[in-house]
Amino acid sequence: MPSRSAAVALDAADPLRHFHERFVVAPDGLIYLDGNSLGRLPKDTPARLSEVLRRQWGERLIRSWTEGWMELPLTVGDRLGEALLGAAAGQVAVADSTTVCFYKLASAAIDARPDRNEIVTDRDNFPTDRYVLESLADQRGLTIRWIEADPHAGPEPEQVKANVSEKTALVTFSQVSYRSAYILATRAITEIAHDAGALALWDLSHSAGAIPVTLDQDGVDLAVGCTYKYLNGGPGAPAFLYVRREHQHDLRQPIWGWLGRTEPFEMAQGYIPGKGISAMLSGTPPVLGLTAAGVGIELAIEAGIDAIRLKSTALTEYAIALIDDRLAPLNAKIGSPRDAAERGSHVALVHPQARALCQRMIADGVVVDFRTPDVIRLGLSPLTTRYTDVWDGLDRLHTILTEDR
Amino acid sequence: MPSRSAAVALDAADPLRHFHERFVVAPDGLIYLDGNSLGRLPKDTPARLSEVLRRQWGERLIRSWTEGWMELPLTVGDRLGEALLGAAAGQVAVADSTTVCFYKLASAAIDARPDRNEIVTDRDNFPTDRYVLESLADQRGLTIRWIEADPHAGPEPEQVKANVSEKTALVTFSQVSYRSAYILATRAITEIAHDAGALALWDLSHSAGAIPVTLDQDGVDLAVGCTYKYLNGGPGAPAFLYVRREHQHDLRQPIWGWLGRTEPFEMAQGYIPGKGISAMLSGTPPVLGLTAAGVGIELAIEAGIDAIRLKSTALTEYAIALIDDRLAPLNAKIGSPRDAAERGSHVALVHPQARALCQRMIADGVVVDFRTPDVIRLGLSPLTTRYTDVWDGLDRLHTILTEDR
Repeated sequence: MPSRSAAVALDAADPLRHFHERFVVAPDGLIYLDGNSLGRLPKDTPARLSEVLRRQWGERLIRSWTEGWMELPLTVGDRLGEALLGAAAGQVAVADSTTVCFYKLASAAIDARPDRNEIVTDRDNFPTDRYVLESLADQRGLTIRWIEADPHAGPEPEQVKANVSEKTALVTFSQVSYRSAYILATRAITEIAHDAGALALWDLSHSAGAIPVTLDQDGVDLAVGCTYKYLNGGPGAPAFLYVRREHQHDLRQPIWGWLGRTEPFEMAQGYIPGKGISAMLSGTPPVLGLTAAGVGIELAIEAGIDAIRLKSTALTEYAIALIDDRLAPLNAKIGSPRDAAERGSHVALVHPQARALCQRMIADGVVVDFRTPDVIRLGLSPLTTRYTDVWDGLDRLHTILTEDR
Repeated sequence: MPSRSAAVALDAADPLRHFHERFVVAPDGLIYLDGNSLGRLPKDTPARLSEVLRRQWGERLIRSWTEGWMELPLTVGDRLGEALLGAAAGQVAVADSTTVCFYKLASAAIDARPDRNEIVTDRDNFPTDRYVLESLADQRGLTIRWIEADPHAGPEPEQVKANVSEKTALVTFSQVSYRSAYILATRAITEIAHDAGALALWDLSHSAGAIPVTLDQDGVDLAVGCTYKYLNGGPGAPAFLYVRREHQHDLRQPIWGWLGRTEPFEMAQGYIPGKGISAMLSGTPPVLGLTAAGVGIELAIEAGIDAIRLKSTALTEYAIALIDDRLAPLNAKIGSPRDAAERGSHVALVHPQARALCQRMIADGVVVDFRTPDVIRLGLSPLTTRYTDVWDGLDRLHTILTEDR
């Protein structure tokens, strides 16, 4: 018989329990199961931003550009890449939105295969990725091959294999499905892309800071992701992009801006791409956003990605067990993989009245996400979500569902 | 005989003098003549950011997206557009970097003229604009017609007229030259573009918050600009873009992202552009950057663009008079228009040893910009630069030049 006291005991035994205190928690008792939409505010962030504002901007002014600001996209990128993405230094940059980063890299990949005219992705890929691919297909007369995958899982290697050919320029998926939390077979799918002569671009938005990512080891060509979910970087924080070192010389992104040029302050005639990953930059680095992103990234590094993954797995297992025990009799189903090895850090709870239930839960102080058509998405953020939050949130849903009977 | 006491008197009589106190000033006595590279930190900014961090992010979390965050690009854009750019509501959005905004609008303009294959701009346009045009020309097989203008002024309408034709898709310039401060004939050049059937795109980075801009009235089609110069929005603050209402239905920007789609949170299949200016958005709004940009914009609105322009003109006139009086005998020349009506808010001081002199000035606590090949750029930011700053900065240069003799 599950009980709240079991959740209290799990919290007490949690090796990451002290990280909860490193984040701001509202005094209103909100149960927040949406850290995969917007991660919580680290307590260090206001102080760090204040320092950057007052000292670096207020007092040092433009001198700060040569005292660290100009390199922030790459220094923050290296910290993130080496500790959390399995990427050796010099391959990750933090700048722009995820959408713009995805546009740059998808475009670069397509341009690198000018004799090919197909893109392979899935119907359930995150919307902004799908829309960017549509814009590139529209601009260049390409065809998108849309894989229709199991909505409670995601594209399988065999499905990818059946869709790639000598026409394929780019194969791109989200590594962790934003709806089901299914972890795609990154290395196998990348190899399938390579065997067909295509490049593989991965969206890590629901991976970074939640599961160990091994970009270099998996042979991944290109990746992007956001820093405002499990990395707690703040609303609209700048995104990251990864370009494998061996491709940096050949791939060219389409938005040639001064920060991507060699010697930008010479302001010379003619664009010449900068060295290495810097050629993927375009405009002036967003210093405030980079600062906040950096704080969130450092907290994840401090906790360690292996400890984060252990906690994440335990949280999702716990949520699934509670749903099975208490909510399955009330018409709730699991819309995520039951094998923890195939599951990211959220759980899709499927219910025919999901949309209305989400509104009721939010009104009752439990923040979850509705995802069309029938998913209540429970985001379990390893550094900030407690087992008691999971209990309390699902208990509230249990109350709503039993009141409705 | 010019003297420092005259500068003190000018400061005392300055109707905008109290704005100086609204900004953070370092205790080190720095003379800052570079507010057109990075504007100073408004004292309101740390408090406002702290409120957004602690209350909106920390406590309200994702609820803040429906409590104002999602509309920030347009609400900040409308404030900026209506008060400072002469743009009626619904035509300005703040998001992305200037480079990305410029790429979006230049691309949209070119795509709207598929039967034309030329772009007209000038060799002395701001580098990032030139590089973006080069990338678009490279991608689409276009030709750029580079106008070679007077480096101490800028492109003239007759030069533009001589370069446009039925092949011209896009005519684009910076409204205020980043080197000479020359104000281009915006309306006349826009009309020349229109007469040739082309669209006109203006970069307002050195205009916004410094000179009155009248986009609607001048018939401008498209514009972009940054908020970290005279608008004091902070390092790498998000940029703005303007799309004239009559073009919003027809022009399509190339980076289709979820925030530019109608009903983004339905996450539906197929990109359908949102209504009006929102279709120009791509990724998640950068809330921290937008917040800081908003504070700077409100300060400029509070001062009023006409008062700002009066002060700006008086500051540049004063600087030119001092250079003529004290520095011309030391080989310094004016590299900006002498007619105040043709001059933005900075002054180009031309000297054969400009590069070395800039380094000396910075080492001596006077922050100016070197601009190749021979310009010391004095940025006179109307809300924060005092007449005594101009005196002190040029006096320091006088000392350096006389010591060198």
